[in-house]
Amino acid sequence: MSPPDPNSPVLSEVETPALVVDGALLDANIERMQAAARRAGVSLRPHAKTHKSPEIARRQCQAGAVGIACATILEAEDMIAAGISDVLITSPVVGADKVRRLVQLHRRSAIMLVVDHPLQVDAISAALGSGDVPLPLLVDVDIGQARTGVASTAAGLALAKHIQAAARLRFVGLQGYAGHVQHIIDAEDRQQAVHGAAALLRTLADRLRAERLAPAIISGSGTGASAFDLDGDCYTELQPGSYVFMDADYGRLREHNGMPLPYDNTLFVLATVISVNRAGQVTVDAGTKALAVNGPPPDRLIGVPSASNYTFAGDEHGTITLPPSAAIPRLGSRVLIGATHCDPTVNLHNGYHVVKGDGTLMRWPIIGRYRAGISPTTNIPEGE
Amino acid sequence: MSPPDPNSPVLSEVETPALVVDGALLDANIERMQAAARRAGVSLRPHAKTHKSPEIARRQCQAGAVGIACATILEAEDMIAAGISDVLITSPVVGADKVRRLVQLHRRSAIMLVVDHPLQVDAISAALGSGDVPLPLLVDVDIGQARTGVASTAAGLALAKHIQAAARLRFVGLQGYAGHVQHIIDAEDRQQAVHGAAALLRTLADRLRAERLAPAIISGSGTGASAFDLDGDCYTELQPGSYVFMDADYGRLREHNGMPLPYDNTLFVLATVISVNRAGQVTVDAGTKALAVNGPPPDRLIGVPSASNYTFAGDEHGTITLPPSAAIPRLGSRVLIGATHCDPTVNLHNGYHVVKGDGTLMRWPIIGRYRAGISPTTNIPEGE
Repeated sequence: MSPPDPNSPVLSEVETPALVVDGALLDANIERMQAAARRAGVSLRPHAKTHKSPEIARRQCQAGAVGIACATILEAEDMIAAGISDVLITSPVVGADKVRRLVQLHRRSAIMLVVDHPLQVDAISAALGSGDVPLPLLVDVDIGQARTGVASTAAGLALAKHIQAAARLRFVGLQGYAGHVQHIIDAEDRQQAVHGAAALLRTLADRLRAERLAPAIISGSGTGASAFDLDGDCYTELQPGSYVFMDADYGRLREHNGMPLPYDNTLFVLATVISVNRAGQVTVDAGTKALAVNGPPPDRLIGVPSASNYTFAGDEHGTITLPPSAAIPRLGSRVLIGATHCDPTVNLHNGYHVVKGDGTLMRWPIIGRYRAGISPTTNIPEGE
Repeated sequence: MSPPDPNSPVLSEVETPALVVDGALLDANIERMQAAARRAGVSLRPHAKTHKSPEIARRQCQAGAVGIACATILEAEDMIAAGISDVLITSPVVGADKVRRLVQLHRRSAIMLVVDHPLQVDAISAALGSGDVPLPLLVDVDIGQARTGVASTAAGLALAKHIQAAARLRFVGLQGYAGHVQHIIDAEDRQQAVHGAAALLRTLADRLRAERLAPAIISGSGTGASAFDLDGDCYTELQPGSYVFMDADYGRLREHNGMPLPYDNTLFVLATVISVNRAGQVTVDAGTKALAVNGPPPDRLIGVPSASNYTFAGDEHGTITLPPSAAIPRLGSRVLIGATHCDPTVNLHNGYHVVKGDGTLMRWPIIGRYRAGISPTTNIPEGE
């Protein structure tokens, strides 16, 4: 399978800078993760914060995912408005307005969320009405990242009981996300960290079972830990996100028996050569407003001689240094630059240009970006 | 003047994370730069890529700016659609579709742009019709940043002649932007670099005058170099952008006779405390999707005990470490986090919440963000 050609007729029509996805490899990544979950008998609930795309969420669900995970209420609102059902919000929702919006979503669609404090439980319980069916809550457990979650087994047990005792709420399980272990390079070290993190969840789950509060769901994990967590007999569902596009950083990870993670890099930024006046170098119109900077430097370039290097050169510019004696790309030619940190790169754009296997193009909107209080769907362009 | 209170009634209603601007200090920054330009007898054309806000552009023009600078055709389209006239696009516009859009703008409003290659000139000339008034072009000169611009005096002279010879175009001047010198810490080193960069422009301007192609406009400079360039007898207009919000990095610069740059930090991200389970630490809902990471770590925090520290903790989270024995902020309380790199932080949001001197709030839209080919104004919320 050849990668997309930045100078193909269809991509030549696209306004730059623009996000481009290799659609065939994207579908392969989706299928590969789903197959691994299927083999392990574990549910898949892909995290949509990576792609913010109802189209990709739909493909994940069609492949067999039980639903999706969202990081914010905005993402959940936009996904549900686009027809995606069964959404887990993976971070506590705090504030009267957001709790009101949560209740509205609950009345429209299957939704669950995590809590890590009794005051959050009380606020949600109070916002629900007597006609509402119980809203399912998971206890968020801090399994080492020190970000959100209850910080002890005792606190987790108390919070589960608090949920169960509250009106119009239902305790359904636990979430533990070990963000800190996903990128540990050495496979054995990573495996050990993954199992250590899961042990905290298992201890709490055992205590809950002893109290007749068995967690029906134990949700968590990410792309880097997924192979271990599928084997680990702890999680009932996994929340990997990055595997659809793959962060370059994951390329450094060593997996079981020396194999890398079996997912391909599928996300690019398309740029135009806008200046060709310097020897051995051209300037393109994609800089730090088009490509996230908190990853390794972009090092996959299509459309320029091999061994060329991209360097950020401001908000709207990058410079590409060419190898000695290489031909200078012509003014106006196009280059694809591999995104190295996908989630924040996606967040810089409003839509994807997806190159299908047959070379044609689809445009998919990106949803759930901050909109300063503008109502849901205001910001959503139509897909093609 | 006291800074905005994140737990004031008006800010408590704002959905987090959100951009917040200190409106009174913003107005003072605008007036202070304009006054400096006025004293020096140099025009001000503030760069709008910093704020992407028609409201702020309007205030800059009302204060006396001759117009604004935009980095992209998208920004120019949205500014002109919002009623801002006299726009200079500060980067070459390459590609048939963008050239068509440029011509459309030229037919609606006063617009100028820079070019750095004869092929760009030819494309624009060919796209204009016989009924069009001449479009004013500036020759972009590389004065040391090695990004865009002609790379020699000879090339600059040839390009100016090429413009003058082309149909429906008018050569009006030069642009040189020395991005690389804006952040040099030592004032003497910076002054020397600024003067060295301007010398290249001066040489070309002299050559052009000798050829009866005197540049009416010499445009350039930025916030860090502005004080020197106002004194420097080279530029007819300055393009500073950051001074409206000020990047934290500029706080490190030493100015003339030991004084810092006289502009205040006015840009914050408002966040909510969403997790309070760990000793000496809380978690807020603003991370790398709310605050740009390519600046110093955020170190101005309002709403938490002094000597607290913010650390990025993922796309949607930050952790705030509290000083020993400090009271833990309550769940749901609000914090203002000073943005340290303003342009890319603004680009993550869709609008500003501006706190006026009387404590009331305005919401101003942010325009000109990439929109995947969606037509102008689709994406623009209404200001209040």
